[in-house]
Amino acid sequence: MKINELIKQLESYDSKGLYQDDFFLTWDKTQDEIMAVFAVADALRTLRENNKTARIFDSGLGISLFRDNSTRTRFSFTSACNLLGLEIQDLDEGKSQISHGETVKETSNMISFMADVIGIRDDMYIGKGHTYMKNVAEYVEEGYKDGVLEQRPTLVNLQCDIDHPTQTMADTLHMIHELGGVENLKGKKVAMTWAYSPSYGKPLSVPQGVIGLMTRFGMDVTLAHPEGYEIMDEIEDVAKHNEEMYGGKFTRVESMAEAFKDADIVYPKSWAPFKAMETRTDLYAKGDQAGIDALEQELLIQNALHKDWACTEDMMKLTRDGKALYMHCLPADITGLSCSEGEVDASVFDRYRIPLYKQASYKPYIIAAMIFLQKIANPGAKLEELWNGTMPRWADNA
Amino acid sequence: MKINELIKQLESYDSKGLYQDDFFLTWDKTQDEIMAVFAVADALRTLRENNKTARIFDSGLGISLFRDNSTRTRFSFTSACNLLGLEIQDLDEGKSQISHGETVKETSNMISFMADVIGIRDDMYIGKGHTYMKNVAEYVEEGYKDGVLEQRPTLVNLQCDIDHPTQTMADTLHMIHELGGVENLKGKKVAMTWAYSPSYGKPLSVPQGVIGLMTRFGMDVTLAHPEGYEIMDEIEDVAKHNEEMYGGKFTRVESMAEAFKDADIVYPKSWAPFKAMETRTDLYAKGDQAGIDALEQELLIQNALHKDWACTEDMMKLTRDGKALYMHCLPADITGLSCSEGEVDASVFDRYRIPLYKQASYKPYIIAAMIFLQKIANPGAKLEELWNGTMPRWADNA
Amino acid sequence: MKINELIKQLESYDSKGLYQDDFFLTWDKTQDEIMAVFAVADALRTLRENNKTARIFDSGLGISLFRDNSTRTRFSFTSACNLLGLEIQDLDEGKSQISHGETVKETSNMISFMADVIGIRDDMYIGKGHTYMKNVAEYVEEGYKDGVLEQRPTLVNLQCDIDHPTQTMADTLHMIHELGGVENLKGKKVAMTWAYSPSYGKPLSVPQGVIGLMTRFGMDVTLAHPEGYEIMDEIEDVAKHNEEMYGGKFTRVESMAEAFKDADIVYPKSWAPFKAMETRTDLYAKGDQAGIDALEQELLIQNALHKDWACTEDMMKLTRDGKALYMHCLPADITGLSCSEGEVDASVFDRYRIPLYKQASYKPYIIAAMIFLQKIANPGAKLEELWNGTMPRWADNA
Repeated sequence: MKINELIKQLESYDSKGLYQDDFFLTWDKTQDEIMAVFAVADALRTLRENNKTARIFDSGLGISLFRDNSTRTRFSFTSACNLLGLEIQDLDEGKSQISHGETVKETSNMISFMADVIGIRDDMYIGKGHTYMKNVAEYVEEGYKDGVLEQRPTLVNLQCDIDHPTQTMADTLHMIHELGGVENLKGKKVAMTWAYSPSYGKPLSVPQGVIGLMTRFGMDVTLAHPEGYEIMDEIEDVAKHNEEMYGGKFTRVESMAEAFKDADIVYPKSWAPFKAMETRTDLYAKGDQAGIDALEQELLIQNALHKDWACTEDMMKLTRDGKALYMHCLPADITGLSCSEGEVDASVFDRYRIPLYKQASYKPYIIAAMIFLQKIANPGAKLEELWNGTMPRWADNA
Repeated sequence: MKINELIKQLESYDSKGLYQDDFFLTWDKTQDEIMAVFAVADALRTLRENNKTARIFDSGLGISLFRDNSTRTRFSFTSACNLLGLEIQDLDEGKSQISHGETVKETSNMISFMADVIGIRDDMYIGKGHTYMKNVAEYVEEGYKDGVLEQRPTLVNLQCDIDHPTQTMADTLHMIHELGGVENLKGKKVAMTWAYSPSYGKPLSVPQGVIGLMTRFGMDVTLAHPEGYEIMDEIEDVAKHNEEMYGGKFTRVESMAEAFKDADIVYPKSWAPFKAMETRTDLYAKGDQAGIDALEQELLIQNALHKDWACTEDMMKLTRDGKALYMHCLPADITGLSCSEGEVDASVFDRYRIPLYKQASYKPYIIAAMIFLQKIANPGAKLEELWNGTMPRWADNA
Repeated sequence: MKINELIKQLESYDSKGLYQDDFFLTWDKTQDEIMAVFAVADALRTLRENNKTARIFDSGLGISLFRDNSTRTRFSFTSACNLLGLEIQDLDEGKSQISHGETVKETSNMISFMADVIGIRDDMYIGKGHTYMKNVAEYVEEGYKDGVLEQRPTLVNLQCDIDHPTQTMADTLHMIHELGGVENLKGKKVAMTWAYSPSYGKPLSVPQGVIGLMTRFGMDVTLAHPEGYEIMDEIEDVAKHNEEMYGGKFTRVESMAEAFKDADIVYPKSWAPFKAMETRTDLYAKGDQAGIDALEQELLIQNALHKDWACTEDMMKLTRDGKALYMHCLPADITGLSCSEGEVDASVFDRYRIPLYKQASYKPYIIAAMIFLQKIANPGAKLEELWNGTMPRWADNA
């Protein structure tokens, strides 16, 4: 799309609520705010494709605080910060003094003297990640009001125990482009299903986030998982709200096949049972390693009962014309490739490799758009200014 | 303070000696030089508060070399470098080949081809940290003269075995602002006291640095510690010199209560006994792990004899009007919070939380000011130029 | 040399082949391309010496992917990227999810959404490093063509199992400067010899790279090593080709003394036997740790049979007028300094310390030149533009 159309779209949304605020959960945000993020993500990509700089900071830090390993999200956050002119500083809890008893309140302030944005990934413990992010936000707000901090760094949730907004918004922007416009999402069936993986304890934030976000665009989101793999109860409320508000539909079914039936989009991936994750969190809190090990064994055995939950070629044939768009947040457990039995057949995965990579490619722009809207009061005018600027990103003279 | 007043102040000081030189110990520097660092720190903060860029480098590296864990100092150094336009590159001795036998001379040159500043923290071993920094400085000077390096990177001591200038200068700038001007420091009593901590082997650089710096402003610095917790002898000489030169006063007393009596400022913190630290350094050199473990046990037992050295509410009541400014370099060992018995009562700490965070907030600006004065021949003119510039740090169009 | 002479030189070479391409092996490149890299390296150094900015990127990432420890190469790559305006992002395989089964194709794309250059060091396994780099290049090319990546990041080989182009080109540029021009390399004798080291398994890329590169300038490259320390066969073919093409000479001799006889340049360093490295690679692939340990012991014993292969003062006397230029890629194993018996006498090393450091100092500029030529279609015009620009690198107002 042309940049001026994107700017016009953007200016039709009321996105003021994003300015100087944090981004925790998509369902905290209005539809206009969500749409504004998409418009800015596309506009930033257009700027970059046209070799225009998108720097809005001459100096400043983007702090990354990762409590779980990550390649994609780490690189996406770094890319987004760099695009806007912020330098990344990792808070590596190994290197820092946090490991020896520093409180969250203190650390939040100590890392923020020159921080413009803080990206946090904390998805391992149920009831902890989101709470931790809210705490950090509260403490930097306090620090700002008390005159400790000269600017209020805003937060971006790079995955918590509840939601994974940068992932699911990248997913949705990908669908918008694949389907030719947000209006084409309406009425489409998304099968969000559990799938077997030989590994253990994957977060629930993707299925929860997909249900919470995609029901907003009038989509028919169908959830399927084996018994015992329930997600958080409150997501149901979010989905119900979205059904009423946006005309979407949320359905639970008992089998992968039922979910895949006539689906336009399928998103099969593994996750851990919510109740088990709660138990694990309690065991960690008590430092009960034997209990954790026992739980892990139990869960692996439980997983292995459901090896038939796999996105096979036969399963794909059930989808609309056998041609549903296959999606995954990556990395996937690919049968015969990364494991002997996994989430998806190698032939299915390979057929969708390019769209899957494209799906991932939106994440840096979604993150950059969130930061842009947090930091720029009049984003349309700023995009216009950047577009009309003469500063190239890459000063090639070809 | 207004920027032009700060620039006027700065220009009244002779700060030429800082240009192209290193910053190791505050007592190497003249009073004018110290005051110039304060003025530039305040000016850089004013620039940032007014959303003016303070970049003086278009490219270049700031090298950080940390031989001890650190959150605050690491983030402060990164922030300072970023503010001035330098990108941080950590020399992580694990990642590098230093661990397998590379000499300091060689490494100093190899990391410096495009380095403008090197920040070093090396505070663990008595007689080693400062010496190491002097060596690095000598080697890069040599490399520069030999035509190996095109620029002479300057050094900033981010904490050594003797002094912690970026900390104590941030402390002092905090006092200047709390008391309403440097002239108000004169005659004020500072209680620099040992306090009990359940942890072991904290560096001596803070008490030594506080004595060495605060006696320069006509302050009455009173040191108290249990027997056996003596600091380096040579600090006494520095303090005596300062008494003569600047009219300060340095007193040793036997108890925390005596030190706190009518104090305007209290700075109670734990440190390791100098003699024990010397012994530990020798044991490390010999690789005598059993000896080190035995020493650690011995020191923890010795520490535990002095649990009454704590900054309690009762102790605070002894200070001037019961309202002394409580200071700490953070993180503090807080009784009932980060440990069962520690340096300070939770209620005392909490009452001073905001000033403590503000105290810490000066460190990035102190470091940036040191680098600025090392790199800019006419700092007043440059600040004026930055102030009059149109380049915002953060291009918000609110 | 003056910048306009360098630009004139550069414009006399056909360097278009470097644009948008990778740099894997020097013998993939034409003589004009090699000479263009030298000219740009000198020009970038001249810009920096004259405090002119060399930024060609306003934002963008340089990805470093190191599969072996490194100080020099890491800092050189960071310096080069920073000089041109790219921020470094390390792909630390420990931190990332690569360690749990992610494929190379996927990772190559996932890290490249905003990557302009990727520097890889992978020198540990025979038959693996170069192949890995070619794979990454192929995958990002594919990603670019498929519309996944908006730009095609180019690769720089920071050391593989076959060649070490950034090292040997820095070495050669050093010789050019020491000997007063590339034309003075013609007919000079280079002794590339094995030398004893108490450590194990050093890569073969330096001797191989030296033979492959220096024979191109009409030099007489003489290789000597104990029996069993053969290098890759295919290097012989490269050398033969260079003899015919450029009038160089490649000779094998049986002893260090014979190689050193009348040499103008000596490059004595340790490496592992090619066949043993092949065996080790197989053992690693099989996960046969006992086999690896046994091999290591065997190789150390084998090494120790050749302690007389050392660059002693006596050996140096055999060289032309006893004054050959001693070269090393650093760090060297220095007898009596970093080990009891090693590659070189301390007195020899020390006499050449300054030239050795200068030799190393070219590496950041060689890397920057490679990137510059990969990214700028008309490099001469761009250098001219940078030279005529008013933006200082370091805004000192001395």
